[in-house]
Amino acid sequence: MAKGLRSRAENYSEWYNDIVKMADLAENSAVRGCMVIKPYGYAIWEKMQQQLDAMFKETGHVNAYFPLFIPKSFLSKEASHVEGFAKECAVVTHYRLKNAPDGSGVIVDPDAKLEEELIVRPTSETVIWSTYKNWIQSYRDLPLLINQWANVVRWEMRTRLFLRTTEFLWQEGHTAHATKQEAIEETHQMLEIYAKFAEEYMAVPVVKGVKTANERFAGADDTFCIEALMQDGKALQAGTSHFLGQNFAKAFEVKFASKEGGLEYVWGTSWGVSTRLMGALIMAHSDDDGLVLPPKLAPYQVVIVPIYRGAAGLEALKDKCFELRDQLKAVGISVKVDADDKQTPGWKFAEYELKGVPLRIAMGPRDLENGTLEVVRRDTKEKQNLPMEGIAETAKRLLDEIQENIYKKAFDYRAAHTTPVDTFEEFTDVLENKTGFVLAHWDGTAETEEKIKELTKATIRCIPLDQPLEEGKCVLTGKPSQRRVLFAKAY
Amino acid sequence: MAKGLRSRAENYSEWYNDIVKMADLAENSAVRGCMVIKPYGYAIWEKMQQQLDAMFKETGHVNAYFPLFIPKSFLSKEASHVEGFAKECAVVTHYRLKNAPDGSGVIVDPDAKLEEELIVRPTSETVIWSTYKNWIQSYRDLPLLINQWANVVRWEMRTRLFLRTTEFLWQEGHTAHATKQEAIEETHQMLEIYAKFAEEYMAVPVVKGVKTANERFAGADDTFCIEALMQDGKALQAGTSHFLGQNFAKAFEVKFASKEGGLEYVWGTSWGVSTRLMGALIMAHSDDDGLVLPPKLAPYQVVIVPIYRGAAGLEALKDKCFELRDQLKAVGISVKVDADDKQTPGWKFAEYELKGVPLRIAMGPRDLENGTLEVVRRDTKEKQNLPMEGIAETAKRLLDEIQENIYKKAFDYRAAHTTPVDTFEEFTDVLENKTGFVLAHWDGTAETEEKIKELTKATIRCIPLDQPLEEGKCVLTGKPSQRRVLFAKAY
Repeated sequence: MAKGLRSRAENYSEWYNDIVKMADLAENSAVRGCMVIKPYGYAIWEKMQQQLDAMFKETGHVNAYFPLFIPKSFLSKEASHVEGFAKECAVVTHYRLKNAPDGSGVIVDPDAKLEEELIVRPTSETVIWSTYKNWIQSYRDLPLLINQWANVVRWEMRTRLFLRTTEFLWQEGHTAHATKQEAIEETHQMLEIYAKFAEEYMAVPVVKGVKTANERFAGADDTFCIEALMQDGKALQAGTSHFLGQNFAKAFEVKFASKEGGLEYVWGTSWGVSTRLMGALIMAHSDDDGLVLPPKLAPYQVVIVPIYRGAAGLEALKDKCFELRDQLKAVGISVKVDADDKQTPGWKFAEYELKGVPLRIAMGPRDLENGTLEVVRRDTKEKQNLPMEGIAETAKRLLDEIQENIYKKAFDYRAAHTTPVDTFEEFTDVLENKTGFVLAHWDGTAETEEKIKELTKATIRCIPLDQPLEEGKCVLTGKPSQRRVLFAKAY
Repeated sequence: MAKGLRSRAENYSEWYNDIVKMADLAENSAVRGCMVIKPYGYAIWEKMQQQLDAMFKETGHVNAYFPLFIPKSFLSKEASHVEGFAKECAVVTHYRLKNAPDGSGVIVDPDAKLEEELIVRPTSETVIWSTYKNWIQSYRDLPLLINQWANVVRWEMRTRLFLRTTEFLWQEGHTAHATKQEAIEETHQMLEIYAKFAEEYMAVPVVKGVKTANERFAGADDTFCIEALMQDGKALQAGTSHFLGQNFAKAFEVKFASKEGGLEYVWGTSWGVSTRLMGALIMAHSDDDGLVLPPKLAPYQVVIVPIYRGAAGLEALKDKCFELRDQLKAVGISVKVDADDKQTPGWKFAEYELKGVPLRIAMGPRDLENGTLEVVRRDTKEKQNLPMEGIAETAKRLLDEIQENIYKKAFDYRAAHTTPVDTFEEFTDVLENKTGFVLAHWDGTAETEEKIKELTKATIRCIPLDQPLEEGKCVLTGKPSQRRVLFAKAY
């Protein structure tokens, strides 16, 4: 176990905090609930951004930027939206400070009060649809397929690094369509992209599903989501894609002249993933020695550590290390050589283990003689002595194997922790003792959903899209049900 | 002249507004002073970001993210900083809204008042140095070479799209060093990077210089800048790099154990460029037909327009258009094919001229027969009939020529509008009639600088770094001066 890092068994929650801190991912800032994303953590987020951005662009989306501030009155225009978002938010009321008359510092200038307060965006539907109103006149202007990378603020009472912070970074796609069908297809397309990203890049298997009315985005007709399972058996919502119907078009009077000559409200979608994905990434794969990163998102996939004594020893190895680095780079592998002589190899080994670097290559004087290298996989900790000859291809293969292996591990964990139950006794027993996803029949009412939550703290994560129809009885009420839904305790 | 676009001669300022609007770059939002950056404008900004980010990383910098909010008390910690930045800013005073008792909407909840107000960051020195305090203990922790891409807010009274907006996007580098010398070198390095970016990518020649004490960044010991000249003879500050001395280290008590065993304050720099660069880019090159983009920053460098009658006509050309696109893409050129049959070729020609696409290629049935293409350069409007054979290489060469030509044009304009003057009469005459940069002797006092500004509206843009020492007399006071400084009216 890494020094200073608590184990998962000891305290899962503190283990998570320790990794975030010790792997240099993020920390709390001086501002309550706001985090500082440190360079190593940010480098992972950049990798996520690049991949997602490429996937958005491949499917015809473009980026734009909308204002940080939302006039208070905008929030009230969509009735359910205001209920969901207007409550806990940062409110700008003044636009100037001035020197305190007593010389004690600066104070808010009472003469600089805004006529209408501004809300720091918790999400941008309102400001974007108020803009779309001017951009959309005719079916020729549709679809609009726009995404924005931005910061948003939701005044959370209890915060946790990456998982729930007052300010977080995200992308929010906002699309406008001429037909309902097209908007629904877009909603599904983006859900598929999120699922593909989670599984193929983050190596995190996800369940695709639709939220119950209770858990729906405030202002949506339907909310689709991907749900992932963490190692403590709790679920984490990793991305959402909303079919907005014509709700925001109606709230902001966005109509278009159709091909047929009518005047119709526009159909909308919105979809987003955030720095919360960092939390999912950390919790899905990491172990008691620290972070485990999927090679596709690791800031550097390989670290090369020379093992030497004294300056002459380093000199003898250095060229070979950089030659090796260049060989790896040539096949598209990202590499760091750590020849820093302020730290010992042992310290470096622990450090890169903590930071989840997928492959570590150590090179000592004997390796130079024998034409070998010591290669250690982060996921299995397997140590191998491999020939230098052909190492680039070997490393490439190993990285692919690691990517696959950690996905498989997470997949197997989830499979072992997804339990169909038919009685409420089983339901509570599994939740308490085995933990994980529980597939159970539900009578479809909000009341039962609420009651189950009260009794067990478990929520319906989603109605899985691939769940077969099956006659059954609600675990709580015994009323008839057509298919099982996915329950879990959740982040 | 493009339809609806005013000419530079008619009204330079409205011409600028027209281009920003008609080329789909940006627009004002519903929130006073905040802009919406539209997809085409944002695509240019993304190109800028990518290039700058690569240049920062090549020089060892990494990205991170710091909070949007700054506690009010932080601003007061650096005496001159608070004078410069605390005044016009967005102040968050509350964290909750609630339903109005009269049902009229939502109101600020008076019970949710923050104990300490939060300022939306106008720049991040304070919050970053308060964080660096925890990151820096020893010389081993130095240097810190960190950049952040972020939004910032300064409550501007008079705003103009891109040039001065309440919210804008930028990057801000914040570095920490063990020695003064190293910090000064960093300041210069970043100035050089900005100058290189402006000249080689934006095709905008710049003067590198140092600001007078009056124009210095609030909290810096020295502010270096790049200054560009716009087509109306006004200067635009395009980037700044600040040597912060130990000011922020002292304000936030950031000390390090030196190699020699002492405890010393850390040396700092900060440097930034913003979406203001978009304004510079637009104004430096564009003409009365619209935007002119340097190929290196154009979202697409070539547009291919098929000229045809009817669906069958398009069918006959389409394959060849896409073949051509693929040929261009293969040599690294970004291309759009516009086969949209809702618009005429004439409309498209005007549209892409307005949008500044560097090269337009039209292909009609006769071209198909003759193996030719009609190629039009945006910068010179020169029309050429060129063989299809080898078009990719030709296009590549033409794009290089355009990049070079628009730089040369801007360079020549600046050369023709940089005037050394020796009397105050000449000084005012040049400023009023010829416009542009004026190189004049100045006695080095803030009083004279202020007086000249009052009399002429011209400010000292900078003391150019490459200006030779030369004995002379101040244009206003006649007092002795060692070298000329650069005056201009400015944005």
